[in-house]
This record gives sequence, C-alpha cells and structure tokens, in this order.
Amino acid sequence: MARIVMKFGGTSVADLDRIRNVAARVKREVAFGNQVAVVVSAMSGVTNQLVKYCTDLSPLHDAREYDAVVATGEQVTAGLTAIALQDIGVDARSWQGWQLPVRTDTAHGKARIQAIEGGELIRRMDAGQVAVVTGFQGVADDNRVTTLGRGGSDTSAVALAAALKADRCDIYTDVDGVYTTDPRIVPRARKLAKIAYEEMLELASVGAKVLQTRSVELAMNERVRVRVLSSFTEAAPDEETGTLVVDEDEIVEKQNVAGVAYSRDEAKITVRRVPDRPGIAATIFGGLATQNVNVDMIVQNISADGTTDMTFTVGKADLPRARTALGELKSQIGYAELLEDPDVAKISVVGTGMRSHAGVASTMFQALADKAINIQVISTSEIKVSVLIAAEYTELAVRALHTAYGLDA
Amino acid sequence: MARIVMKFGGTSVADLDRIRNVAARVKREVAFGNQVAVVVSAMSGVTNQLVKYCTDLSPLHDAREYDAVVATGEQVTAGLTAIALQDIGVDARSWQGWQLPVRTDTAHGKARIQAIEGGELIRRMDAGQVAVVTGFQGVADDNRVTTLGRGGSDTSAVALAAALKADRCDIYTDVDGVYTTDPRIVPRARKLAKIAYEEMLELASVGAKVLQTRSVELAMNERVRVRVLSSFTEAAPDEETGTLVVDEDEIVEKQNVAGVAYSRDEAKITVRRVPDRPGIAATIFGGLATQNVNVDMIVQNISADGTTDMTFTVGKADLPRARTALGELKSQIGYAELLEDPDVAKISVVGTGMRSHAGVASTMFQALADKAINIQVISTSEIKVSVLIAAEYTELAVRALHTAYGLDA
Repeated sequence: MARIVMKFGGTSVADLDRIRNVAARVKREVAFGNQVAVVVSAMSGVTNQLVKYCTDLSPLHDAREYDAVVATGEQVTAGLTAIALQDIGVDARSWQGWQLPVRTDTAHGKARIQAIEGGELIRRMDAGQVAVVTGFQGVADDNRVTTLGRGGSDTSAVALAAALKADRCDIYTDVDGVYTTDPRIVPRARKLAKIAYEEMLELASVGAKVLQTRSVELAMNERVRVRVLSSFTEAAPDEETGTLVVDEDEIVEKQNVAGVAYSRDEAKITVRRVPDRPGIAATIFGGLATQNVNVDMIVQNISADGTTDMTFTVGKADLPRARTALGELKSQIGYAELLEDPDVAKISVVGTGMRSHAGVASTMFQALADKAINIQVISTSEIKVSVLIAAEYTELAVRALHTAYGLDA
Repeated sequence: MARIVMKFGGTSVADLDRIRNVAARVKREVAFGNQVAVVVSAMSGVTNQLVKYCTDLSPLHDAREYDAVVATGEQVTAGLTAIALQDIGVDARSWQGWQLPVRTDTAHGKARIQAIEGGELIRRMDAGQVAVVTGFQGVADDNRVTTLGRGGSDTSAVALAAALKADRCDIYTDVDGVYTTDPRIVPRARKLAKIAYEEMLELASVGAKVLQTRSVELAMNERVRVRVLSSFTEAAPDEETGTLVVDEDEIVEKQNVAGVAYSRDEAKITVRRVPDRPGIAATIFGGLATQNVNVDMIVQNISADGTTDMTFTVGKADLPRARTALGELKSQIGYAELLEDPDVAKISVVGTGMRSHAGVASTMFQALADKAINIQVISTSEIKVSVLIAAEYTELAVRALHTAYGLDA
C-alpha cells in the first residue's frame, strides 16, 4: 500500500468524459490498495475566460478580486470529480483551498504556499476516503482566497504530497514523460525513466515545459518523488510508465547529458563600446533590474582601447522595456550604440553526470562546429552548458547534439 | 443618509456591460450619501450550466458537492462586480458566503439561512466601503458550502438587510414593479406603489413570480422594507420608482383587492364515490404526503348514498406521483374511479382590504358568471379568494375581475 497524490491538469479534465476518465484512474489506484489524494486544475479554457473577464473590466484590477474570481475554476472541477468518483462507488469529497486550509502568503495572483494542514486528510484517507483538492489556490491570513499563478497546480500537488508524506506525486499531463529532447524535432528522442531534480529544473528553465519550475524546486527541497505521465494512455501505470523525477542518488546509470533543450523566447542585446571601468556593469544591470527586466546570459569581451562590448539576453517580451532602460542610461554610461537581435535561440545540454566528466562542453562546441553553426554566447552552470545561436539553426543544432551525446534511441 | 441593500439577479449581471451598469447604479447610491451592500446572483445561464454538469455526471449526485460546484457562479459575479466598482472609483470588496459568514443549516441544495454576521460589514460601510456579497449561498457548521435553492438570492438579500439593519432592500429585476395583474393579459394593469407583505406572499404563491416566496416571508418576519424595481431603466430611482413591499400599516389607501393573479401550474384530481366515513380524508392526503405530493385546493361534496366525491389540485409535475399514490390506496379506500384534468387554471384575487370589506367573493362570482365561466373549485383565505376554472378562460377571467374590482388604469 502506498499513499499517492494524483494531479490532473486542464486538458485532463477538459469535459465530463475526461473527468469520468480521471475518476476511473483514481478508482484503479484505490483498487490497488493505495490511499489517494487528487489535485485538479480548472477545465481547460475556463481560467482564460475568467482572467479575460477581469482584464476586460479593468486592466489594473484588484488582485484579491481577481483571485476570488479565477479560483472558482478549480472549485468546479474538484466538486465534479468528487461526484464522478462517488458515481462509480469511490468514497470521495472535495476540498477547497480555504477548507483544508492551504495557507499562503498574501501575494495575490502569485502567492506562495506556506503550509498545508494534512492531518484531517490523513485521517480520512486512512478511513478509505479519496480527497479531491483544488489546485492553484489557497487562503491568506486575511481569510481571502489566493491563487498561485499560472501552472500553480503542479506546485499545489507537490506541496500536498509533502504535507501528506506521500510516497509519490503523479502529475498527469498530455505527454507521457520527460524526453531527452523535443520529439517533434528529434523523432529518435527517448523517454527518460528517471531524471534528477536538478536536471529537471534546468530543463524546465530552458523551455521543456512539462513541469512548473516552482513545483520542481519544492519537490527537490521536500524530497517528494514526482512522476510525470500521460492521462491519455489507457494502460494501467506500472514501473515503466512515465518519468520519475527523483534525487540524483536514485539514478544508478548516469548519463553525462540527460537531455538537450532549446528556447526561442530570448533576444540578444549588445551594448557597443562601453567604457571599461569599475561599476559600469552594475549600472547597466541595475538599470535593467529597476525596469523589472530579467537578464539571462551575459558575456563581456576583453577590453580594447579602453572600451568593451557587453552582450546579454533578455526575454523577448522584455525587449521594449530593456531598450527604454538602456536609452535612459546612455548619457550616464556613454556607450556608442545598442544592437538588438531577436532572432536567436538558446540551446542547452543538461546532466548531473557532467559534474564528474570533463569534455562535455568541448563535445558540444565540436558538434556545432561540424555543422558550421556559429556560437554567439556561452554560459555554463554546474550541470548545464548553454549556447546562443542564430534561431534558424535551432533544429539542426538540437539534432546534432542529441546524436553527439549518444542520446538517439 | 440611508443604509440599503441592492440585489441584482442573473439577467442584471448577464455580461460585463450589465455588470458595469450595476456598478454605475451602486455608485449613484453612494453619491447620494447612502451606505450600500450589494447582493449578486450568477450571470444568467451559468447556474444552469453548472447544474447540468452535476446532473449529467450523476443523476443522484451528492448535494454537498453540487453546492460546492454551483456556488461558484455567484463568486465570479461578486468578484467582477467589486472590480467594476473599483474601476469607477468606488471602494468595494467581495464577500463569499463562508467569509462573512452566512451561516445556514446543512440541508444542502435548499439550505436555510440561520444567521449572518453583519458587524464587520457595518464597520466597513461606516468607513465608506461597498460590500459585494454572493447571493444564494452560505456555509454550514461542517464548514462546507451550501446553497439556498433556486431564487435564493432574494432571500440572501433580505437576510443581509435584516442583519445590517438596512433601511431598505432594493431587489433589481427585469420588471419595474408589482402590477395589479399580468400586463401581458391586461394592458391596463397598474403598477402598485406599495403592497403589503401578506398580499405579496399570496401573489407569489399563485404565480406572480417577481419575488421568491421565502424572501417575502423573511421580510415580513424581520420587517425589512423591500422595493422591487427594474435594472433596465436608466433614470435614477426616486420615491415613485418600483413597488415597495411593506407592512400593511404603511399603506394608507387600501383597496379591497390589490391584484388578480393566475396560475396554470396545477392539475385537478377527483376521487369518485369515496366511502363517506371518518379517516378517509386522512388516508388519501396522508398517502399523497408520503409521496411528497403537495396538495393545494381541496373540496368535498355533501355525501349522497354513503359516498362522496373528493376533488383537489396538485402541481402538474406531481401528477404522475399522485396517480401512483392513489392507485396504491385504491383497495384500502374502495373508491369508484379517479378523474384527472390538467387543463385548469387557478384565478385569485388578493387584498388585505377584504378583511374589513364584505362582498369581495360575491363580486368575483358575479363577474365570472356574467362571462358564463363555470367555477369548479373555490378556496378562500383571510386575504384571498381563489377559484379553479377551465384553463381556456384564463385571460377572459383575469380581465373581467381586473375591471370588476376597479383596478383598470
């Protein structure tokens, strides 16, 4: 017997038939002798409609009222899922965020979970009842409803799993696991049986959108074993199903590189001929931070003639604000010109194995050089090497790297 | 300065433009120096959709889960109305049933309000904030969401007005007041400036569906002054607007008859040749009650040859269950046959004035006789006379009575 949390996203509860399908999956786990808590998102499309209502009424709407409106989507799904479970003979009840309660801070619209009371749920699960919990929401100290921000239901599920000391948190989604890379680009991409938290984090942050980044961080901190699997395959899950996101130590056969990810969401900015003196970088990036511009990769060339070129990437959506911020700094800094290039892609190879293996980066550079792909910027972390290239080479680069690291099936 | 509750039904908050219109009306009252609490229903159509989800999933769904699902409709409208108010500069916040709280019993799907905590709201209204409260819902002692049953938002508004000791409860609807009769049948029907609680109750129970019966009962018990008015007229409300539902003593010029109502929702049943002995009526109506059949008018003819005919009316929807109940009693009672007639209408004249004026009933019978309309059953209460006639005479009878009592404009 195990205690598991099963989380179903919007497409998995999109209509009544899909909700019945969810109920059947839960019943199967109960029949295996497992204790089950279910976390559900809103039916797909519902949250967008509710957000649109708020935005259409007032672009600068009160985030507390927005939360009260938007949180209803999950409340509907939770109630309906409980009804569907009862209809097939499974004892179940729904729980809204304020009922458990799921306590959060008061950062409405993007609240963070502080604590979940798990005691009552554990008693009921011990007695055989399935708990159906609204994802994405909680209640703040002022007794008002909060939401966690988009994708927050994954975080709700992991936090609930931690509170219930669950053996596993199964995240049902529309893909059947985490792949070595995007199968739409590389048909020979392989599903990973296991992936380490750190690897999943790096993959999530570079565009492999299977799990919400915050949910992976939380799983890593709380040591919650997370499984990503599909709600669209009929077979009962077994040991082979989906991808298990676990502690590095649980992965016996480590690859140097677990996966290749890409992101086309960034734009490159070069500030030309910046005076090369102390404090200049602080001025530039301080100015960008003031405008809420998130900077990712940064590279600074060696100085020549007392000036240098500063190149970095920002989210494409932040480009106008970055331009404004740097324009305002021009007289203060005294740079020559500003170059922008939105047609770039960031390609990353990720793997905890590279901690103990040299040569991962040079394999990458060689593979790209073999395809005559020019590298514009390089950045590295302990378990990741990323390069910025022209966007048109994205697929070519991903395929070349997938082969170079021996990931092809 | 007055403290008022404004209640808006589903058609009055049907879309964002209607919600903006509600906000404008509320702002106008605030500008007059009034303290305002707003009670809102779900956007029209939403509750039906949510009910359909529950019913489609499981005809015998758990009423507690049904409540959790269905109550979300009002939560959306309350949040959106608060946003619309803030957008035009009115300080406002939404309150869900569990937040105030609105305490109810645990009769899910048709709960009754037990108490509303008004203290916090009064403090905030004193400070100038408008409260937007979800109609139709509350929270039971077990901390689960309850709903009051269809039309319950009127009751929410009246209960809130009582809790806040409000000067008036304005019920905005799609008609501009209570009329002497249905203007679709009698174009010369007049809007009543005032109507007594008791009259409104009798009118509501015979098919004038302006206010929910329970809300009028509550208003009468708590002495809440209720005004019915339209949310579709642009002019600012004044003393003449709508119809005020008040204590009888407030109405100076009493008419013998305040209005003429009709209902085609009933069917007539005659049990022929029932043995005329003690206990027979108890057996028949006891059997119907067991099957949850509500009986309205009852008439028993004088006995001849030791048997009698028993005639009564039931709601049309209850006819099949009444038939079953009476069939099961046939051998026990030993009646000759069962006659059914669904093509009947109940016509009622209502007025507190008839307490002190004789001749109201005979005026009715004469007016109907003049039009050669046969009366099948008669029933009377202190302030109402009702007759059952063939349905085809409905309009003719209503017009004749409206003229006979001098109600024509």
